[in-house]
Amino acid sequence: MKRKERDEQLERMHHSVAHIMAEAVQCVFPEAKFGIGPTIENGFYYDFELPRPLTPEDLPVIKNKMREIIDQNAPFVAQEISKDEARGLFAAQPYKLELINEISDASVTIYKQGSFTDLCRGPHLDSTGEVREFELTHIAGAYWRGDEKQPMLQRIYGVAFGSREELEEYLSHQAEAAKRDHRKLGKELDLFSIHEEIGPGLICWHSRGALIRQTIEDFWKAEHFRRGYDVVYTPHIAKLDLWKTSGHWEFYRDYLFSPMEIEGQQYMLRPMNCLGHILIYKSKLRSYRNLPLKYAELGTVYRYERTGVLYGLARVRGFTQDDAHIFCRPAQVEEEVLEVLRLAQFMMSSFGFDQYELFLSTRPEKYAGTESMWVEATESLKRVLERLALPYEVDPGQGVFYGPKIDIKLKDALGHVWQGPTIQVDFNLPQRFGVCYIGEDGSEHSVTMIHRTVLGSMERFLACLIEHYGGAFPVWLSPVQAMIIPIADRHVDYTRKIESDLKNEGIRALVDDRPERMNLKIREAQLEKVPYMLIVGDKEVASSSASLRLRNGEDLGLETVAEIRSRIQSAIETRS
Amino acid sequence: MKRKERDEQLERMHHSVAHIMAEAVQCVFPEAKFGIGPTIENGFYYDFELPRPLTPEDLPVIKNKMREIIDQNAPFVAQEISKDEARGLFAAQPYKLELINEISDASVTIYKQGSFTDLCRGPHLDSTGEVREFELTHIAGAYWRGDEKQPMLQRIYGVAFGSREELEEYLSHQAEAAKRDHRKLGKELDLFSIHEEIGPGLICWHSRGALIRQTIEDFWKAEHFRRGYDVVYTPHIAKLDLWKTSGHWEFYRDYLFSPMEIEGQQYMLRPMNCLGHILIYKSKLRSYRNLPLKYAELGTVYRYERTGVLYGLARVRGFTQDDAHIFCRPAQVEEEVLEVLRLAQFMMSSFGFDQYELFLSTRPEKYAGTESMWVEATESLKRVLERLALPYEVDPGQGVFYGPKIDIKLKDALGHVWQGPTIQVDFNLPQRFGVCYIGEDGSEHSVTMIHRTVLGSMERFLACLIEHYGGAFPVWLSPVQAMIIPIADRHVDYTRKIESDLKNEGIRALVDDRPERMNLKIREAQLEKVPYMLIVGDKEVASSSASLRLRNGEDLGLETVAEIRSRIQSAIETRS
Repeated sequence: MKRKERDEQLERMHHSVAHIMAEAVQCVFPEAKFGIGPTIENGFYYDFELPRPLTPEDLPVIKNKMREIIDQNAPFVAQEISKDEARGLFAAQPYKLELINEISDASVTIYKQGSFTDLCRGPHLDSTGEVREFELTHIAGAYWRGDEKQPMLQRIYGVAFGSREELEEYLSHQAEAAKRDHRKLGKELDLFSIHEEIGPGLICWHSRGALIRQTIEDFWKAEHFRRGYDVVYTPHIAKLDLWKTSGHWEFYRDYLFSPMEIEGQQYMLRPMNCLGHILIYKSKLRSYRNLPLKYAELGTVYRYERTGVLYGLARVRGFTQDDAHIFCRPAQVEEEVLEVLRLAQFMMSSFGFDQYELFLSTRPEKYAGTESMWVEATESLKRVLERLALPYEVDPGQGVFYGPKIDIKLKDALGHVWQGPTIQVDFNLPQRFGVCYIGEDGSEHSVTMIHRTVLGSMERFLACLIEHYGGAFPVWLSPVQAMIIPIADRHVDYTRKIESDLKNEGIRALVDDRPERMNLKIREAQLEKVPYMLIVGDKEVASSSASLRLRNGEDLGLETVAEIRSRIQSAIETRS
Repeated sequence: MKRKERDEQLERMHHSVAHIMAEAVQCVFPEAKFGIGPTIENGFYYDFELPRPLTPEDLPVIKNKMREIIDQNAPFVAQEISKDEARGLFAAQPYKLELINEISDASVTIYKQGSFTDLCRGPHLDSTGEVREFELTHIAGAYWRGDEKQPMLQRIYGVAFGSREELEEYLSHQAEAAKRDHRKLGKELDLFSIHEEIGPGLICWHSRGALIRQTIEDFWKAEHFRRGYDVVYTPHIAKLDLWKTSGHWEFYRDYLFSPMEIEGQQYMLRPMNCLGHILIYKSKLRSYRNLPLKYAELGTVYRYERTGVLYGLARVRGFTQDDAHIFCRPAQVEEEVLEVLRLAQFMMSSFGFDQYELFLSTRPEKYAGTESMWVEATESLKRVLERLALPYEVDPGQGVFYGPKIDIKLKDALGHVWQGPTIQVDFNLPQRFGVCYIGEDGSEHSVTMIHRTVLGSMERFLACLIEHYGGAFPVWLSPVQAMIIPIADRHVDYTRKIESDLKNEGIRALVDDRPERMNLKIREAQLEKVPYMLIVGDKEVASSSASLRLRNGEDLGLETVAEIRSRIQSAIETRS
């Protein structure tokens, strides 16, 4: 069977299992009102209005009922009926009636199997017996039509596969992903929190999350300084007029927070960092000799996203971009993009990502700049990708209106794909703001701007790191690098000495001097995924050493404090 | 003469010179309308409505006229007249008429000297000839009554002293202060800019200013980490309700930006960082064993200040506080304040400030918490100041309503006083937010919070540093630490090698490879106050060395690159 056929067959199965689940729910809850039951990746869901809230204990009951229906091997029968007939058939189903009334055709299709009939375009399997392996995975609440003003329905999610092995592989992958879920680990490792009182999508970075972020930021700043970037800071708000000039007010209004007023002037929280950089550029006359100028900023921006789409650190309303804007001559675009890609590769490999996909987005229908500018810039981007021998896909017409771009998507250890570095060429803002340089000919020329991030945002990048490493960060990123555990109270003084010795060398060490048993402390340090545990008793004090354990449980035996220190330092320096 | 008498005599003189200046202006511009002419520190000003804008060239003309009036030695004569008489006398003076109408007494006092009569309470000198040394310093625009809706008048500022020496000392001090003005040096040294398009009081930190800030922040973070602070990051906005709970909406409304709306919820830009820290504290159950907990954040806050009071970096609308909140048991307040004061002393001395004044502000009339809490906390603060043998003044009743505080004011090299560290005890927010810990007795107790900054804000602290050092920052803070100057093109490659050699050791080095003459490059590096200049010609290339010059013009002769590197490194490490 070809891939397309297999996909279609799987899609039919997913859809059929959804109907089987609906039939089973109808058996269990005869009063059930049915919403919709579409297929999704690997499975399906169905929304119901039920007389009481579902609990996880309901799922096995529904599953057993589904098994019975499958065993009956009832055929799926399609029938075309008039809308009036359909209204009669679904007279007790208000959601179905609503859907019927919205269909513009004169007739509608229904599918029937066993005791259950659904409004449905199909296609379906021939009969319920063709269903192979399925599982009901979870329950969630969902507003009818995704609209907060409509009733809240109950949604059951399920998956279905062609074989037991595929199902089991999927479920174990899901279990691993759930263990690595950054929202769960973020709480367990005390990395961050989100508070309804502050607002959804707004992140409080706790000490340990902040230490990771600070380590990333310090590394990022040093690397950018080394590569000739000027790190700057610009305000989080600016007059609304500036955002009108830039076009953000016109093009991104849906993502903007409403303006504030000061002394009769309207101000807005920034959705992007570019405008401050443009004004710094324009604060002096710039010559071709000064270009490229590269302004970098760890700039926090605020964008409105609907509450429903917010997701842990990965989709938020306030985030800090590792942003930079390169002001260059058009002829420098190729070389600058090359340098950005090199930096992006260096960054990705520094953080342990060796798999990624590249996409080149070209001119959309509506665009700024001239066609020849687009051709030239797009060709530059292609040449760079080829010079670096980076395979890429073209996304035709998917560039931003102001210029072509390269997107890089990272694959984490579980194969999840994350938005990574972005490099966008911009012909638009330099024109709108008259961003110029004095050329060799002594006259003014428009610069080309390159917008780029190499990590994306600190929030999303931490989410990605947490899931990539399952919380067991490499030593250099670990918020606590060494946990020192005294066996008895009389060893505490010595552990304090080790702590200050390690801290003086820049190692994030902590003593666990709680009045608890050693084994509990070791177990907790392992749960906290601290890379090194230094256990100290009489023998260790006597020999100026510690017993070294790794978070994977490996026992490295006695090492002197000096040995341990240089072991940790070398792990930090090599970022391993 | 006693100090008080001398001050009164000086005040009389300042006021009299203001009248003499007004008479002179009347001679030069017979159409002049007169506003007010009060005394200020060291002098006076007078506001006028004139037929044309003043230029600096007008000042000598007015001064000469003043000299003539002084030589005439005309007596100052006071007279009490009825308001009706006064209205007749000042019929052509609309501003004076406005003032007369606002006086509630039946009669008013006028003072007359020579050809000039003013509405004035006095007192004055006996006659114009008693005036000693004076100077007209500058012209400015000023709205009538400081109200932007009223006409803009022209203001002339002047100073007057009892002796030539005092005047000259004052003027030379002013000249030095003007040279060190952080707004002027900020532009000359390319440290920051403020843009009308973004909004007044909002700072763009250019690369060089940002390097100084980053150096300060890195130092600050390392020092806080070492002292057991948890550095965190929290959002710049939060729901308005949170600011209502905290009391900020009620007590600080005049300093708040207007709210924004998202999905029907009101949000506000934060004026303070405390609330995020409180919510992080509250994200877990805390025991007495966990205290003190110290959350530190380089937190940018936004507060409304009238356009008229904004002043360079020193008074702004957006600023980054080096903030921290210490959550502790009441019994720990003394020890914690002691530690903060030690940290503040360490910080001030690290940045070259050895003169400062301390103020202890006690309970105001309206206060939160109980009287015994205030007594206890105030006594703790006093004991700490005494334990550290720090002399201080008491500001009775000047504490914030939520607790007593210690303020430290820094004196810069010119004797100007800057707001420095602040330490505030807070009984209020823990109550409002129910911020508790589980005590040894197993039950809940309210924590005490200490709010503190040790630098104040990054913006104001940079202003203070610029003026303290006159822009010649110590090596560790200098944005460019070494400027490498090739004498001819053939030396450029070698200077690039030195540059990368120094950069690899963390030294901020730059090559000036512009096609300009060596002397111009040296002069410009000196103007940029770069501490080390490395000049490289044939001799230097041959001996792997450079000729070293300091920014004060001192020539240190030939040194090897290794010697120079370790010289600069040691200056950085010792922060000298």
